[in-house]
Amino acid sequence: MKFVKELISYEDAKKITFEELNKLTKDKYKKYDLSDCLNKISYEDVISPADLPIFNKSAMDGYSVIAEDVFGASESNPIILEKIEFKESDSVELDKLNNLSKNVVGDENFELTNGFATKVSTGTKIPNGSNAVVMKEYVKEYDDYIEVYGGVHPFENVSKIGEDLKKGDVIIKKGEMINPYHIALLASVGIQKIKCVYLKIGILSTGDELISIENYGKEANNKNDEIKKIDMEYIHKTGSIINSNSLMLKCLLKNCGFDAKTYPHVEDNPAKIKKCILEILSENDILMTTGGTSVGDRDYTFEEISKLGEILYHGIKLRPGRPVGFSKIKHTDTIKYVYIFSGYPVAAAIQFELLFNKYFKPLHTLNLPLTRNFASSLGRTDIMRVKLIKKSDINTNSKLFAEPLRISGSGVISSLSSADGYAIIDENIEGYEKGDIITIYLFKQ
Amino acid sequence: MKFVKELISYEDAKKITFEELNKLTKDKYKKYDLSDCLNKISYEDVISPADLPIFNKSAMDGYSVIAEDVFGASESNPIILEKIEFKESDSVELDKLNNLSKNVVGDENFELTNGFATKVSTGTKIPNGSNAVVMKEYVKEYDDYIEVYGGVHPFENVSKIGEDLKKGDVIIKKGEMINPYHIALLASVGIQKIKCVYLKIGILSTGDELISIENYGKEANNKNDEIKKIDMEYIHKTGSIINSNSLMLKCLLKNCGFDAKTYPHVEDNPAKIKKCILEILSENDILMTTGGTSVGDRDYTFEEISKLGEILYHGIKLRPGRPVGFSKIKHTDTIKYVYIFSGYPVAAAIQFELLFNKYFKPLHTLNLPLTRNFASSLGRTDIMRVKLIKKSDINTNSKLFAEPLRISGSGVISSLSSADGYAIIDENIEGYEKGDIITIYLFKQ
Repeated sequence: MKFVKELISYEDAKKITFEELNKLTKDKYKKYDLSDCLNKISYEDVISPADLPIFNKSAMDGYSVIAEDVFGASESNPIILEKIEFKESDSVELDKLNNLSKNVVGDENFELTNGFATKVSTGTKIPNGSNAVVMKEYVKEYDDYIEVYGGVHPFENVSKIGEDLKKGDVIIKKGEMINPYHIALLASVGIQKIKCVYLKIGILSTGDELISIENYGKEANNKNDEIKKIDMEYIHKTGSIINSNSLMLKCLLKNCGFDAKTYPHVEDNPAKIKKCILEILSENDILMTTGGTSVGDRDYTFEEISKLGEILYHGIKLRPGRPVGFSKIKHTDTIKYVYIFSGYPVAAAIQFELLFNKYFKPLHTLNLPLTRNFASSLGRTDIMRVKLIKKSDINTNSKLFAEPLRISGSGVISSLSSADGYAIIDENIEGYEKGDIITIYLFKQ
Repeated sequence: MKFVKELISYEDAKKITFEELNKLTKDKYKKYDLSDCLNKISYEDVISPADLPIFNKSAMDGYSVIAEDVFGASESNPIILEKIEFKESDSVELDKLNNLSKNVVGDENFELTNGFATKVSTGTKIPNGSNAVVMKEYVKEYDDYIEVYGGVHPFENVSKIGEDLKKGDVIIKKGEMINPYHIALLASVGIQKIKCVYLKIGILSTGDELISIENYGKEANNKNDEIKKIDMEYIHKTGSIINSNSLMLKCLLKNCGFDAKTYPHVEDNPAKIKKCILEILSENDILMTTGGTSVGDRDYTFEEISKLGEILYHGIKLRPGRPVGFSKIKHTDTIKYVYIFSGYPVAAAIQFELLFNKYFKPLHTLNLPLTRNFASSLGRTDIMRVKLIKKSDINTNSKLFAEPLRISGSGVISSLSSADGYAIIDENIEGYEKGDIITIYLFKQ
């Protein structure tokens, strides 16, 4: 295999790539509404502008009281408190905005004093001055007063100010993927938009043999006016391949927080490839190509890219996934990047995982023992795909093991859809034995 | 707390709910294009209509040969094979559809015979009759013939028919969530649409104190024409709460494969609540409400729903999450369901996880030791939220532990955004001790 540069180690390739991604993402963000930012990556730390709750809330239905008033209350020693209602507030009208008929919380200047109690519901603000809530089950209500049958200590049955968040707390860390609970917290403190990392990414597959999935099932006109349908028989006879890499990369990017665009695939023609690269780079920050990475007569992608910019690496001592490249192209005064992934689906998926996904969405890891030996090569980083297996030991504790998947070659996509994760076997290691503890990166479901 | 029915165990509630979900989802699906089915749930087993690859493919650039012809070939014993090119095919024209200038694969009737070799590229079909590929590095090319310097065994450097999928293999199982690798496989065998589980789900929050997040920052008109802005100070004074539950549930449902619709929140008014319930059920299969689940003066949701249909349960011996209900309503001859979740965000999230999400997207589990004691109650299922902690032992193996999060009450959302998972502590268990091995359900990131 003829590479335009010497092969480098995976660690070096990762370092080069991540340094460029650092530069690229430094100032690339977009503000998304809360309802659109799920599973996107936060551009910066998001700080809470307020305490949450911002007031002491009742955790129960009952009466808010001053705890000291009811110390020692019991069935045999009920304590009497005078009922006081909130006045309806004069200062606020919520109807027009919130379609509410009355403000049940009351006068903002209201302060509870000793000997009094105010009726509250679960989740409502307790009045200033009160510091506990007696559950309604411990109260007997009369017209003007209540009898309390159980004492409460300070802050009993109260959700305290700042219990969820303190003003200044970090709600989401820079680089964190936004989940539904983050969104609940953000909404709760009045944050409506979030800056998310935003990259425009285009995907291009190359190859004479490609057929687009949209054309599957359609008619293929032939020279002799013999109409044939593009079906699996047609594909068999013509040696065509349906372009699945573009869609796979688009979905992998979606799961990583990016809405990428797939472009129509292009044939193995240098001029056409060059034209596509330039067009795609004109409207994207990153181009990801698949196909055309080994060096045969048909592999023009690297050649064309090396004429347009700088190839930072071409080929990694990695298996599967050796034929991969990364380049930097100056396009109308902006630095753009091209990932040149393998045409083999599994190699492309692994290259994407190790050189892009890992930067934005590092996977959780587990250290697990192997169920069998696994050979690898010195001087090359091997990617071992595994399934997680549960076994019970003599103590009937169930333990988790990593079972390497048996696969041949790098074309076998089903090894990825059935794998639970993978391990990175360093180039200095010749293999592992059954029972060795390995760090497994877990695929998210 | 007054419940309309007796509290039941979590196991019973789960059983009742899942049986109804079985009935509901029996025939509810929608066909999605491949590009839209990512992270949706497959309605049925999807079977491969073909082998993949459907032809033997070259794994290298080189020459496809009959392996027996080159046994024993070496530098000192090169074997000569006559070159034969594929004819360009007459039977197929791909231009109009795929913009290709020529078919590089050739005549479908071509068969390689002993003594001949055909040039191939990585990923292309090898001709009938050949059964191996010699890498170009082991070949010296001349005009009409090649010299082969290294032997190959049968199927060396060949991706075999059916290596990825055999016709009849299950690509995606019924109920499985569709991932990018599934989509690559589906496209590769010409499948363009997938039946995914499809439920129309509406979300409604109830509560006088609610403010919608869209209105945050807008002006609030008051009776005295004193314009105030709806900000945290306003919220503090009025005891309002921003509706975050609706958006949280919508996001949780999105992650579960469903595109739910949030409706404007409604105040604690029986007639209005009833109207909303009926309107939402008229255009949805399931309604999820939050708020209004404990029984105070303000909690009308259960009351209104019990007038419209059958309450299957109201209250589970569960903490957090006790006030939850599930009901069945016949609406214009169709059975619809209402989940009545707590108004407390964490309780609602946990109820959603245990009674809906678990049905469609069961989480991975790990058995891990606890880092400290954890008390629970007999007669009640407790949900313990945990963080995963790595510790090194004396053998410098790093082991994983589950650390229970310290939280008070069920209002604290940050305990969910910082939790890695949870454990379900059975109602028959009084607690666990440090070191006990517990099954942890892992939140996906």
